[in-house]
Amino acid sequence: MTIGVIGLGLIGGSMAVDLRRRGFADRILGVENDPLHAEAALRIGLADKVVGLDECVEQSDIVVVAVPVGTAVHLVGDILDRFDAAGAADKVVIDTCSTKEEISLATRFHPARRQFVATHPMAGTEYSGPWAAMSGLFDGRACIIADHEESSPKALKAVEELYNVLNMRLIYMSSSSHDVHTAYVSHISHVTSFALALTVLDKEKDEKHIFDLASGGFSSTVRLAKSNADMWEPILIQNRDNVLKVIDTYIEKMRLFRDAIEDFDGPGIRSLIEDANKIKKIIR
Amino acid sequence: MTIGVIGLGLIGGSMAVDLRRRGFADRILGVENDPLHAEAALRIGLADKVVGLDECVEQSDIVVVAVPVGTAVHLVGDILDRFDAAGAADKVVIDTCSTKEEISLATRFHPARRQFVATHPMAGTEYSGPWAAMSGLFDGRACIIADHEESSPKALKAVEELYNVLNMRLIYMSSSSHDVHTAYVSHISHVTSFALALTVLDKEKDEKHIFDLASGGFSSTVRLAKSNADMWEPILIQNRDNVLKVIDTYIEKMRLFRDAIEDFDGPGIRSLIEDANKIKKIIR
Repeated sequence: MTIGVIGLGLIGGSMAVDLRRRGFADRILGVENDPLHAEAALRIGLADKVVGLDECVEQSDIVVVAVPVGTAVHLVGDILDRFDAAGAADKVVIDTCSTKEEISLATRFHPARRQFVATHPMAGTEYSGPWAAMSGLFDGRACIIADHEESSPKALKAVEELYNVLNMRLIYMSSSSHDVHTAYVSHISHVTSFALALTVLDKEKDEKHIFDLASGGFSSTVRLAKSNADMWEPILIQNRDNVLKVIDTYIEKMRLFRDAIEDFDGPGIRSLIEDANKIKKIIR
Repeated sequence: MTIGVIGLGLIGGSMAVDLRRRGFADRILGVENDPLHAEAALRIGLADKVVGLDECVEQSDIVVVAVPVGTAVHLVGDILDRFDAAGAADKVVIDTCSTKEEISLATRFHPARRQFVATHPMAGTEYSGPWAAMSGLFDGRACIIADHEESSPKALKAVEELYNVLNMRLIYMSSSSHDVHTAYVSHISHVTSFALALTVLDKEKDEKHIFDLASGGFSSTVRLAKSNADMWEPILIQNRDNVLKVIDTYIEKMRLFRDAIEDFDGPGIRSLIEDANKIKKIIR
């Protein structure tokens, strides 16, 4: 099978590696706007060839759109237009974006909608670009298939096979549920890390050696602040309403801590910490 | 040398393991109020014997106080009283607490002050108790020696040797500088994790499956929320003024994100993220 991968970064590149290595893809065609990324992806061997969008869509059985969500929203529609125009009813396109509602709305009434499967493989690192691609990135992780009833059974089956090869655990839900859930268990973590980095970097302006004492705990809490703006700006805007709601709850919780600390309220602090400790049941 | 370890938990227990294994201690005497911890510490082999405070102080050359900071503040004074009463001018006591200003004030005018060295070995995990103790915990990590000019050169030298055996990188600073620095690079990370856990656990009351999608990023950001209230309640109270200042800056940064997201302000979000990304220079 020929797989077209649009965007040879962390997600697209890692998919390419394992889809080929595990025999699902005979040929990988990459599309990559950034010339340095294109060059690096070829050198690393992520794709057999870097081609234009037309050639990629024409020759691929499954097209994987692995670009930031702002671009993906338009690109999936463009690709469905091409499927439609060419009468290529067997081809399938998937996206891999971290927000699903806007892409779902944008494609909803497209005549070739059933050839599109909206997916979100929930794996990643704080790094990006073709040099961040790695084998095994998806193994054992969750992959959401959103609004699967909007896709044809045949398209769905092809995509389920692809994710089975990547050893992903498939979860089916509506795009709106997806966006609520990810606001809580992914998007807010990024915002809290960004805010933490800004807080400490501000202080570093006066206290040059502030990071000498940075502990492992600090590093793990701030790790996501290395995440890339190209990816996260559109996620935060597309999932605006859910993310705002979570940020507001989060600020309320911070205020509870703040007030208890200000009041020297030991039992209050203790009870907040003990409630937070219940996370142990969930995160091993 | 005989080392007395008061509090056979993560910090005290891990010190005991490596001080013995690396030949610094011939004998470890433990003091442990919790009978289960005492039993487990003996079974695991953290101490040769669990004894009362009197016996420990009488027989040890160096006493390590590794209990939560609220208790440590009084205990160090008690131990200095005993040194003084017994005329034991060669013995040394250290604490290992995460806040240093209050313990420094509490011991400042003690006649045996020079036998006390205030230290903060900056290592740990989110686990606690004797079963969390491990070899190598301190290797390569920073250890702060606070207000070292208040300790006698001899006491200081003994403690420097102890931490050299643990392979720690020694940093000297005043207790007040220590508390400002740790507010930024350790205490705030814990508060942000606690608040994140509370936010998501709240939502879980309505959405049972919210954690199905929890990503590696979420786990790393929320990891510190497993930290123990016995330890963190007194830290947050003792370092109240610094921690409040950091929380306020942090809430301001969250509000900048919130407002940019609310206003669909893409360039604003991007610029906040890019500023936060500067943390890359610092945290590898």
